[in-house]
Amino acid sequence: MNTTKIGIVGYGNLGRGVETGLKNSDDLELVGIFSRRKPEQLDTSSPAYHMDELAAFKDKIDVLILCGGSQKDIPVQAPELAKAFNTVDTYDNHNEIPNHFNRLDKIAKEHNTVAVLSTGWDPGLFSLNRLFAESILPKGETYTFWGPGLSQGHSDAVRRVSGVKNAVQYTVPREELVDAVKNKEAVDYDKLSAHKRVVYLVLEEKADENKVKEIIVTMPDYFEGYETEVNVIDQATFDKEHAGMPHGGTVMRQGKTSESETAIYQFGLDLDSNPEFTAAVAIAYARAAGKLARENQFGAKTVFDIAPSYLSPKSAEDLRKELL
Amino acid sequence: MNTTKIGIVGYGNLGRGVETGLKNSDDLELVGIFSRRKPEQLDTSSPAYHMDELAAFKDKIDVLILCGGSQKDIPVQAPELAKAFNTVDTYDNHNEIPNHFNRLDKIAKEHNTVAVLSTGWDPGLFSLNRLFAESILPKGETYTFWGPGLSQGHSDAVRRVSGVKNAVQYTVPREELVDAVKNKEAVDYDKLSAHKRVVYLVLEEKADENKVKEIIVTMPDYFEGYETEVNVIDQATFDKEHAGMPHGGTVMRQGKTSESETAIYQFGLDLDSNPEFTAAVAIAYARAAGKLARENQFGAKTVFDIAPSYLSPKSAEDLRKELL
Repeated sequence: MNTTKIGIVGYGNLGRGVETGLKNSDDLELVGIFSRRKPEQLDTSSPAYHMDELAAFKDKIDVLILCGGSQKDIPVQAPELAKAFNTVDTYDNHNEIPNHFNRLDKIAKEHNTVAVLSTGWDPGLFSLNRLFAESILPKGETYTFWGPGLSQGHSDAVRRVSGVKNAVQYTVPREELVDAVKNKEAVDYDKLSAHKRVVYLVLEEKADENKVKEIIVTMPDYFEGYETEVNVIDQATFDKEHAGMPHGGTVMRQGKTSESETAIYQFGLDLDSNPEFTAAVAIAYARAAGKLARENQFGAKTVFDIAPSYLSPKSAEDLRKELL
Repeated sequence: MNTTKIGIVGYGNLGRGVETGLKNSDDLELVGIFSRRKPEQLDTSSPAYHMDELAAFKDKIDVLILCGGSQKDIPVQAPELAKAFNTVDTYDNHNEIPNHFNRLDKIAKEHNTVAVLSTGWDPGLFSLNRLFAESILPKGETYTFWGPGLSQGHSDAVRRVSGVKNAVQYTVPREELVDAVKNKEAVDYDKLSAHKRVVYLVLEEKADENKVKEIIVTMPDYFEGYETEVNVIDQATFDKEHAGMPHGGTVMRQGKTSESETAIYQFGLDLDSNPEFTAAVAIAYARAAGKLARENQFGAKTVFDIAPSYLSPKSAEDLRKELL
């Protein structure tokens, strides 16, 4: 079996998820974790290095999994690292993906590397299912529901409100809408009204509960316009019930195969750990990136461009025999 | 836009489904339906020809969709037609797929054609989801549930029982098992006990109801060992409620992303018309076969070997912009 040697760049939730996930695959080997922090500051038993040492690993690593943030890290790191390494990222700024692709494609083709971008589940598996569903059922409508799941950005926004000690925000799809799509009923969907936002927070002592709630539900861009439910709980309950990072969601398409016949196409995820699953998808695409590089298929690739067999450690023969 | 010219071989339920489905895609054009019956015997307004005329269409058709049966037609027709045409089939004899692939691969490579085999939903989309789920969640278990759906083979078997005038058989997954998988519970699954069989039949006059039921529930290979429910109804109810060909099912994987965290991966279909949806999948892969042939990527291909973007009429740029 070809072993693919992996490097992790960035050691937050996603980087830790990749470190954990790599243990599930015998054909992948973790060479090192690279961080801007000092290696001894990282709480890991894996080999850890400072980012400045990465260049020396050019010939020791087959694929780098970029685990930094989409806001500031990936736009800078991905184009730079693609000059010397095959890379996989989980860049999730949907509007900027076309530019990110074009930038990476040019660099990767110039330097004979493979850059797989925007893996994970949305973008990633959800995108794939939107593509399959629409291609197979051209006459129809696709619906994406996110959650129930923890939204990091919205949790941060609530935590910044004066008087809030701790907070989490869950995005929750309206079950009645999800069911209506499944039941082949006509659905009046828009992203805003299809989801509600549920907040659990712990107040600072002496905080004004009503004022805090008012600030949250009227917060522009984050909560304004959404149905928002705010629950005040104590710290013990918070620690016990809201420590995880669950997420998930559903992509569905109601399609007409003929005038009278409907088909429901449905893809769903229910994840105890959002970062671990996102990491698991990135890992499978790192395997694919290794294979593409060995075949000299250089350039930027998205999940749309990669044949499914590339994700598996099994041979094409075994896949046909066992899974087809 | 590149128009892909399609020929249909065989005009049963699947062939009619392809004829209907092609109307949903502007980039695909139906050139003709080819059948062993006389063209004037086919109830269609599309151009219809006898199979003997097919050879003359070598340069007028880009892809043939083979709509014959997997038992007798495809094993004979596919290798023969792959010598002159790019083909797509829905060959569903799982055990024989590896041989079917090897046979077609040799012929297609010798004759510079593309042969896409075993499309549809199982094999096909279900296979794809088994592959994605297992590649992303290496530690876990995959469960496939079929139905609720009409089983043609089992319906035929019941109709052959003496005293039965009309019959349909539905395969129904045990909801409690499906729910247990979704709820991350431990599941004791085997294909047999995970499904029950529900029969609706109309008796011939003077038939012995108890005897008929006994013959059905003890029928080896078909019903023996399954929980089987037999319902006797009248012809009017039969005509009203059991004329369609619904099917569907679910592929799920319970995977561990780490020791304590579980991920549920779920793919489901709910189809008013099994043949129309199977046809819809074959049509999308016919588009892919046309593209592969234009790129000289000859040989046999399964759904595992084809990058998802090939299924769509949209450009790679539009896919990244609209669906990623």
